[in-house]
Amino acid sequence: MSTWSDAGPRTVEQHAAAVAALLPPTGTETVALADASGRVLAEDLAAGVALPPFDNSAMDGYAVRAAELAGASDAAPLEFTVAADIPAGRTDVPALAPGTVARIMTGAPVPAGADAVVPVERTDAGVERVRICAAPEAGAFVRRAGEDAAAGETVLRAGTVLAAPQIGLAAAVGRAVLPVRRRPHVLVLSTGSELVAPGGTLRPGQIFESNGTMLAVAVREAGATAEQLSFVPDDVERFRAVLAERAGDGVDLVLTSGGVSAGAYEVVKDAMTGHGVEFGKVAMQPGGPQGCGRLELGGTSVAVVTLPGNPVSSQVSFEAFVRPALRAAAGHPAPARPVVTARLSGGLSSPAGRRQFRRGLLDAATGTVAEVGSAGSHLIAALARADCLIDVPVDATTVADGEPVAVWLLDA
Amino acid sequence: MSTWSDAGPRTVEQHAAAVAALLPPTGTETVALADASGRVLAEDLAAGVALPPFDNSAMDGYAVRAAELAGASDAAPLEFTVAADIPAGRTDVPALAPGTVARIMTGAPVPAGADAVVPVERTDAGVERVRICAAPEAGAFVRRAGEDAAAGETVLRAGTVLAAPQIGLAAAVGRAVLPVRRRPHVLVLSTGSELVAPGGTLRPGQIFESNGTMLAVAVREAGATAEQLSFVPDDVERFRAVLAERAGDGVDLVLTSGGVSAGAYEVVKDAMTGHGVEFGKVAMQPGGPQGCGRLELGGTSVAVVTLPGNPVSSQVSFEAFVRPALRAAAGHPAPARPVVTARLSGGLSSPAGRRQFRRGLLDAATGTVAEVGSAGSHLIAALARADCLIDVPVDATTVADGEPVAVWLLDA
Repeated sequence: MSTWSDAGPRTVEQHAAAVAALLPPTGTETVALADASGRVLAEDLAAGVALPPFDNSAMDGYAVRAAELAGASDAAPLEFTVAADIPAGRTDVPALAPGTVARIMTGAPVPAGADAVVPVERTDAGVERVRICAAPEAGAFVRRAGEDAAAGETVLRAGTVLAAPQIGLAAAVGRAVLPVRRRPHVLVLSTGSELVAPGGTLRPGQIFESNGTMLAVAVREAGATAEQLSFVPDDVERFRAVLAERAGDGVDLVLTSGGVSAGAYEVVKDAMTGHGVEFGKVAMQPGGPQGCGRLELGGTSVAVVTLPGNPVSSQVSFEAFVRPALRAAAGHPAPARPVVTARLSGGLSSPAGRRQFRRGLLDAATGTVAEVGSAGSHLIAALARADCLIDVPVDATTVADGEPVAVWLLDA
Repeated sequence: MSTWSDAGPRTVEQHAAAVAALLPPTGTETVALADASGRVLAEDLAAGVALPPFDNSAMDGYAVRAAELAGASDAAPLEFTVAADIPAGRTDVPALAPGTVARIMTGAPVPAGADAVVPVERTDAGVERVRICAAPEAGAFVRRAGEDAAAGETVLRAGTVLAAPQIGLAAAVGRAVLPVRRRPHVLVLSTGSELVAPGGTLRPGQIFESNGTMLAVAVREAGATAEQLSFVPDDVERFRAVLAERAGDGVDLVLTSGGVSAGAYEVVKDAMTGHGVEFGKVAMQPGGPQGCGRLELGGTSVAVVTLPGNPVSSQVSFEAFVRPALRAAAGHPAPARPVVTARLSGGLSSPAGRRQFRRGLLDAATGTVAEVGSAGSHLIAALARADCLIDVPVDATTVADGEPVAVWLLDA
């Protein structure tokens, strides 16, 4: 079998496809409306009732037979007996007898026989008898049953991302719960004997752990769920034991950072090589060393993506490979970041044969993007000031000041 | 005192300012990094350590004195004793003796005396002695302490919206928790004797409750917290009793829908008029009848915004008045929806003297926007298909096909 490293570096697209193939579409679960925000609807939603469910008044006023008001005006009002009072929610509305009107509130059912509503402002607001100064057209201020949606009509399509208006619509057609796509669940591991938990104290040579925290947050921002397991020991046997114990049912993906490059101590690579996970290079920068596959753990296996350990490499690799795969698995209709074209402010140079993702700040008003920091994959403070990634094509060695570049919007 | 209704309708801007004035800036609370996503940083964040904290290697390779390698090449490698092995995390790194090199891994501390790193790929990867085929420049593949951020430097400004990269940076400088702006807490009430809980069965004249659910979700999507209290009785005394009981400490805003127009049964208006809340018209459509103020409840008072009851009116009013006020109160740097200009596909007409917010679908590729549904404020199914609001100026009576209009992006 030809392996990845024998075949040379993968393109970004090839590795993205390999990662996406590890995450099949998630199934369906049912959630209460209050918990549905941001979720992806799993099935078409048919209206359980028509919207509106019944003919109702668009105004506070009087339900009338329009023909009986022909010629009414401010100068020549017509007077009627108010035969009924119809607040919203009245469930026993009598039919309107000829020659009478009914006082009616916004949203209240229009009585049988009535075919128009005159707003209270065009009347003397009488309670037992009322003088009406307007001649409405038939249908005026009546909202017809079903004019927004017919009963049984599909009002939301499977794949819709749910937010307040869609959830309000689901409530309006009578649904208390909705079928949504399950969120993928990700176990985030960080390894490295140099790592110290934030809040602690560094000894010389140590750094604070940041990748695991950053990736777990990024996983949740991508609409998945994350469990973070930090400080997994830099020991192959213990590392495999932790995975065997924790990466069981309910884990859709194990996401690691670090331990995958060419060094002498690469716990992730050493623990997984030959057990279903392939390692190799992707023709990109940052983020060259990558790995992915299904890790065999006794009788079972789990999808694994191994990101490089430099914080910027880790985050850029997450954006390029993991975020779109997680969102696609959850059925999101737009898994990728929005991409726009902007003119680069100030030039940059880039190694041939590697697609570079430089960190940028977009000025939407002028359509320009400026680099933040430089190419170094350790510049996390610069990453935190950026709002986009500047996508420098694999074969470009320079981009001149003012040249157009593709820009991935991280804020959208 | 001149009242709102005496003074005539408010503009959208006037009412937005009145609502915003009810919500002062929230205070600060401390959250764990994992809970900081989407929150607004309350204070400037200074780096507790330099980034990187110490000079470290950018590659797996050998730490060297560059001057000792002058002239080394593939044709003429130079051989050295490997005096030390420096994995990442080693805390007792000895200084490099002249004439020796140290094997070093990515991220490991560069020993005193060394001034460059040669990647392992340019060597024979020896363990006790190594042949090196490259003459590095001083500083090559060494990441200098502090080159990303100096110790004490402000790395994140107060007001920054936190996402994965910013949270990763906070971890990298040693912070386990962050001071963030407290989320406003909103009590969402819906009233109306016509309302039935979704999941139940409608009798004639009844509708499913949707506004409370929709508004509570919208409040949370705006970055605030919401408690939903549905089916508050349509009875002034009982309504005030519920408010007195529930709108106490910890509630920043009471948000109601319905019960504010010109009808005979307007429980919200009747319960609050004369107790600190003003009601009147805003020159907009949908959403004309509005109210806001500080409701006096015995010895205390609470901010109240009363939205109209039609679902589209309610949601559009939320977008125009409540969402920006909640986000501004929480310190969000961009409280308003992004606004773009697009050309209208198909014309529309609009009443003079009212700023209309029609529901639209934006085609970003062509820069055009098309109306979804029509002006009716009951068309919630159409609202749920829209991704933007078309902002028709207050004095416009028509917008022709192809004319530019301002568009509020609801998805962004």
